[in-house]
Amino acid sequence: MAEQKATNVHWHDGEVTRADRNTLLKQKGATLWFTGLSGSGKSTVAVALEKALIQRGHLAFRLDGDNVRLGINKNLGFSAEDRQENIRRIGEVAKLFVDAGVIVLSSFISPYRLDRDNVRALHNAADMDFIEVYVECPLEEAEKRDPKGLYKKARAGEIKNFTGIDDPYEAPENPELLLKTAELTLEQEVDAVIKLLEQRGILAAA
Amino acid sequence: MAEQKATNVHWHDGEVTRADRNTLLKQKGATLWFTGLSGSGKSTVAVALEKALIQRGHLAFRLDGDNVRLGINKNLGFSAEDRQENIRRIGEVAKLFVDAGVIVLSSFISPYRLDRDNVRALHNAADMDFIEVYVECPLEEAEKRDPKGLYKKARAGEIKNFTGIDDPYEAPENPELLLKTAELTLEQEVDAVIKLLEQRGILAAA
Repeated sequence: MAEQKATNVHWHDGEVTRADRNTLLKQKGATLWFTGLSGSGKSTVAVALEKALIQRGHLAFRLDGDNVRLGINKNLGFSAEDRQENIRRIGEVAKLFVDAGVIVLSSFISPYRLDRDNVRALHNAADMDFIEVYVECPLEEAEKRDPKGLYKKARAGEIKNFTGIDDPYEAPENPELLLKTAELTLEQEVDAVIKLLEQRGILAAA
Repeated sequence: MAEQKATNVHWHDGEVTRADRNTLLKQKGATLWFTGLSGSGKSTVAVALEKALIQRGHLAFRLDGDNVRLGINKNLGFSAEDRQENIRRIGEVAKLFVDAGVIVLSSFISPYRLDRDNVRALHNAADMDFIEVYVECPLEEAEKRDPKGLYKKARAGEIKNFTGIDDPYEAPENPELLLKTAELTLEQEVDAVIKLLEQRGILAAA
């Protein structure tokens, strides 16, 4: 026998349920999955939304490329395989947070449809809300903003496989929400998300 | 240039702080790290503690071998390298939960001192509470209980590298709390943990 694989494990229900935690927090844990080009405004809207939710007494938490890449995924690079594993792990972490009752704001380029759909399927299989928010911004506009100077480096060939330049971005076909950041104010974007959360019963109406 | 590694990333402070979430939840996020032999009673006390905390209005969430091994760590086996990566990822997930304000109950054998100390160091570096709880139980007693029948399989050679049988368990030298489960009732164990949490300011005193 070579190696013991994780075969002896099973779900451990315990005595506290997800519903108990939702009741405690007066909200329903859910994953909001922001996807879009670098510079499209994903983090900006996630930051503002997190603040708006906390101010309303709701527990929200952001997962983003910056904090995840320095922590759980610091042993991953940007190869195709590592990008896929990056999104897989984030999806699993998000699920744990939803189980804990938290509203997770996940903010990653996540350019590949298959990877996002896998995370959606994981949530669906566990009867958890997965809300895909397409933060849409024309490439020219995102490149003009270039808040981290990454497009410049990609155009100069200093970064390879950069989404939108020499790696594809596969736009969502049926996102739960479309935010055109070149046309909306930040306040309008936040309001649109909160309205959707209320409609879906994630937040109790005020 | 071969592969872009995670070098362009930095911590994204956003506008909501850990302190804001702690204030919202009226508690201080913290990791309780239960360690001990298979069958020592780690999960039993974690399940009971989670229930006691939720009943008191505190947000607690368990990470355990069962749910983590089926999710984020389902691509890991039980080789030395994979066991180390298993604990590393769990430590990083725990940190994210602490950042979110949650009291994390982590319940894994986690037999190696170095792996546990690495998780402790990660928490310390972020000024986060890491509370190691040694769930101590004599091997003979744990083997007698054998709730999952794993010791029997290990003795029969059907499972290799089983902690306590043909792989070492390195007991904590200075755990924040020692629970001798062969000598205490479950209620006494839960009370001891809650008292410690109150003393450390994780829970506001009732």
